[in-house]
Amino acid sequence: MILLGLDPGLGTTGWGVIRAEGNRLTHIANGQIKTDPSMPLPRRLSNLHAALIDVIRAERPESAAVEEVLGNTNAQSTLKLGQARGIVLLAAAQAGLMIGEYHPSTVKKAVVGTGGAEKRQIQAMMAVLLPGAKLAGPDAADALAVAITHAHHLASAAGLARRARVTAGG
Amino acid sequence: MILLGLDPGLGTTGWGVIRAEGNRLTHIANGQIKTDPSMPLPRRLSNLHAALIDVIRAERPESAAVEEVLGNTNAQSTLKLGQARGIVLLAAAQAGLMIGEYHPSTVKKAVVGTGGAEKRQIQAMMAVLLPGAKLAGPDAADALAVAITHAHHLASAAGLARRARVTAGG
Repeated sequence: MILLGLDPGLGTTGWGVIRAEGNRLTHIANGQIKTDPSMPLPRRLSNLHAALIDVIRAERPESAAVEEVLGNTNAQSTLKLGQARGIVLLAAAQAGLMIGEYHPSTVKKAVVGTGGAEKRQIQAMMAVLLPGAKLAGPDAADALAVAITHAHHLASAAGLARRARVTAGG
Repeated sequence: MILLGLDPGLGTTGWGVIRAEGNRLTHIANGQIKTDPSMPLPRRLSNLHAALIDVIRAERPESAAVEEVLGNTNAQSTLKLGQARGIVLLAAAQAGLMIGEYHPSTVKKAVVGTGGAEKRQIQAMMAVLLPGAKLAGPDAADALAVAITHAHHLASAAGLARRARVTAGG
């Protein structure tokens, strides 16, 4: 199954695509979409949307995932992030993708083993979990981490369903 | 000139369309787009986007306007508003519309005369400024108020340009 992880941001949105077959994960592609801060906001948002549509068309993911956002005390930052996140969710929904949402601590736990990991540790773990992947940057690494979390979640959900069927059958 | 005012919200987005000819304003249409809170967020955003595209196609505005958002202390509310606002700005940008942004106090001043007006006063003033307009609700009234603010702004900008030409010509 091909999975798309997304790390939304108005300035930079990270994306990462992996293939998940059972417990085996393979890196396919990753990148960062930047928007020009000197452009009007609506233009930045429509450029982000168009770039996301291009990524989805090129990579043909079967499912997508983003981090849940907690928002912070700076309302203007939260608003900017919200605007970019709306565009990211829209692009995935328009492509007909199911979208998983994961708490940041769930993502950290899935890739580093603890919920309190730093951004640097996530980048370092990508070299271990997806050997050979050349990272476009920290936001692309975060996006790949979300995709991996999604893969774990789908695999364990499938495992549970399988065990339930075996139990019901036995 | 046909102007579209927008009042973004995840639960309800208000819209209002007016015609501005010199100082004369005429109501054309207004409405409220609601999204179903029981649906997943990406679906709500794509429904909002599709409904906005329908409004823009039907009303064919030549320019659009939204209120600037200050954000508030509740990060989750600000995030929701941001996500809806991103969709609203995207839909207008995709339609090739220029988008004016106005501070809430500028909008209140334009339609009520003071920057500290209440939501109820804005609704009441719509009956005066756009006689005959049947309001779909308070968010539609706010959207019409933004459209009126935009009309005033465009008219005074055009007036200034005209005066500048006359001065330069004389």
